[in-house]
Amino acid sequence: MTDHDRPLSGLHIVEVSSFIASPLAGLTLSQLGAEVTRVDPVGGAADVHRWPVTADGESIYWTGLNRGKWSVTADLRSEAGQSMVQRLVTDSGPGGGILLTNQAGRSWMSHDTLAALRPDVITLELLGRTDGTPGVDYTVNAGLGFPQITGPVGIAEPVNHALPAWDVACGLYAALAISAAVRRRERTGSGAQITLPLEDTALSLAGTLGYLTEPQINGRGRVGTGNDVYGTFGTDFVTADGGRFMIVALTPRHFRDLVDLTGVGDAVAAVAKALGADFRREDDRFTHRAVLNGLIAPWFAARSTAEVEAALQNSSVLSQRYRTFDEVVADGVLSANPMFTEVDQPGIGRYLAAGLPAAFDGEHYATGPARSLGADTPRNQPAQPT
Amino acid sequence: MTDHDRPLSGLHIVEVSSFIASPLAGLTLSQLGAEVTRVDPVGGAADVHRWPVTADGESIYWTGLNRGKWSVTADLRSEAGQSMVQRLVTDSGPGGGILLTNQAGRSWMSHDTLAALRPDVITLELLGRTDGTPGVDYTVNAGLGFPQITGPVGIAEPVNHALPAWDVACGLYAALAISAAVRRRERTGSGAQITLPLEDTALSLAGTLGYLTEPQINGRGRVGTGNDVYGTFGTDFVTADGGRFMIVALTPRHFRDLVDLTGVGDAVAAVAKALGADFRREDDRFTHRAVLNGLIAPWFAARSTAEVEAALQNSSVLSQRYRTFDEVVADGVLSANPMFTEVDQPGIGRYLAAGLPAAFDGEHYATGPARSLGADTPRNQPAQPT
Repeated sequence: MTDHDRPLSGLHIVEVSSFIASPLAGLTLSQLGAEVTRVDPVGGAADVHRWPVTADGESIYWTGLNRGKWSVTADLRSEAGQSMVQRLVTDSGPGGGILLTNQAGRSWMSHDTLAALRPDVITLELLGRTDGTPGVDYTVNAGLGFPQITGPVGIAEPVNHALPAWDVACGLYAALAISAAVRRRERTGSGAQITLPLEDTALSLAGTLGYLTEPQINGRGRVGTGNDVYGTFGTDFVTADGGRFMIVALTPRHFRDLVDLTGVGDAVAAVAKALGADFRREDDRFTHRAVLNGLIAPWFAARSTAEVEAALQNSSVLSQRYRTFDEVVADGVLSANPMFTEVDQPGIGRYLAAGLPAAFDGEHYATGPARSLGADTPRNQPAQPT
Repeated sequence: MTDHDRPLSGLHIVEVSSFIASPLAGLTLSQLGAEVTRVDPVGGAADVHRWPVTADGESIYWTGLNRGKWSVTADLRSEAGQSMVQRLVTDSGPGGGILLTNQAGRSWMSHDTLAALRPDVITLELLGRTDGTPGVDYTVNAGLGFPQITGPVGIAEPVNHALPAWDVACGLYAALAISAAVRRRERTGSGAQITLPLEDTALSLAGTLGYLTEPQINGRGRVGTGNDVYGTFGTDFVTADGGRFMIVALTPRHFRDLVDLTGVGDAVAAVAKALGADFRREDDRFTHRAVLNGLIAPWFAARSTAEVEAALQNSSVLSQRYRTFDEVVADGVLSANPMFTEVDQPGIGRYLAAGLPAAFDGEHYATGPARSLGADTPRNQPAQPT
């Protein structure tokens, strides 16, 4: 049995939101079928002009994260505006009563205020730090240890990540928490007051993945390994014409195939014997990676990028040529992928926009373009923009 | 109204799984109240000994990601083992019929095979590349463009991320997709066949965040900015005793406070006038960041880390001292955070383990330790390990 209704159809979510995590949560819920209304102050929130922008100054960022949502603006400092938002949340039918926000600490839209109007309300507040004080991806990341293990080995300076990974994870946890709370409410009638600090998102994942367990159990934390994958065999190699490949040998078969491909079987066997190592074991491959890297690198250095790419295609070894964003687009990766569909975004133009990465029964759920700011603001305040 | 039942209680999920994304999805669903049974081949999957490990070789990694799950082992190449797993998925009551796996392509546990036994089954297969061929976080990341914009400006080599951010996002999308599919099944009775490639996870997020839209609309992609935050004012500064702080001024108020704190108001105003810039605008702060960084850096360089930390605490500026993982633990961050609770993990010892970062009605959902591999394998195959 399959079902062509999207899994979260019938839900109405009000998002009082800005920046990355909270709008990403709203977009993701929208892709899954929920109706999402983003509420902004008149003129837009702090992220309305955020870079990247087009040559004309239109925000690619804002439109990318707010696709498929209604856009309502209101004077959030006025009682009329606050009351309109309260009604948007609480009057929106059986699938409504859901508030997603990163604007915590406003008593007029606190959980208690809204629950007095609608007892089964679900609210999710995204916070910065654990203690509720402000924090953003870049500050949370600095405090946690990842910049110190990122970048070339031997470099003294910490290296920030380019992808705001904690914002992304926080937005996805938020969407999940709302989806799970809805499932419970539909069974029991109970609402939920959910809080989700960005710092806790980062701490939880760093804990679960072991980074914060090592200092507790082994007495010291991870140190950087540059572009080498920690704990197994993986690194990057450069070709004769300056191409670069990331190579990973996770399993004994991957490693054997890599050794065969690069013709270093005898040398690897001799090294294994001399060092008492067994390269079928990933810990031995990791421990002796400098030697292995040195044995394997000349094969790449002696061949063109095209030759290397062709040879790797017939191997089990996990590999990928490093590409820039421009190359990804120029290579036709987006146009070949059914997850991307063309949107015609007012102010931006036509481009291939991404749907949900999870395909349900073969379908990648897409959304339309972003509405222009305030396009769905009710003219008579009590009405809903639907 | 609140509800102390966890939001996904009553669900039974079978996870045939390894590495990061899929086990993280299972752990997260377990934290939300689902009963999760991880199935492994006898002796464990490829990740059973994965680093980090203790001095005795026990995997901190495996135990961290498999907390709160039952552990069943079976000979997955035998008909008896396969049949046992099929029954685990399909016989597990109204909340069962859910399979989460990263082991795609096995016809005995394909969606069609299981749907023939239980029409409302929900299956989620995590794949590597979009086309179904293998790929891992490190190869997906290399192909997408982020390593080329990570690391110090001017460095020729791409810099891999240390956090496997795509695995994390993929695991969270997987948990969300299952939660949403369950919500639909409980309303309509329909199952779902969900596929989720790691590569599509990365492409979708890179698209949504604008990185893949810029080449399409502006004709060229993002270039690296080192530790400077793109599009606004944020960078790192070094103190007299070698401490380092990440500083972000997202709003005009943040920036004004930073300028006041560091006593460079006159110089900043003179520069603004000379350059025709308005530093209340984040694009102007970003464009002229090298000048602003240069004006502000001496204040940090002239003060000790303790002095800087004290001064920043009284400011609205977003700031964080860079810390290592060891410092996070030594600073008592975990013990002060109710999301962390002590687990006594056989083979590993006692440590503070992270619960779900989203708190429901003030409660951080925790799980118990990981079971030892195969501890819940049914002695008589038809039985369930509950």
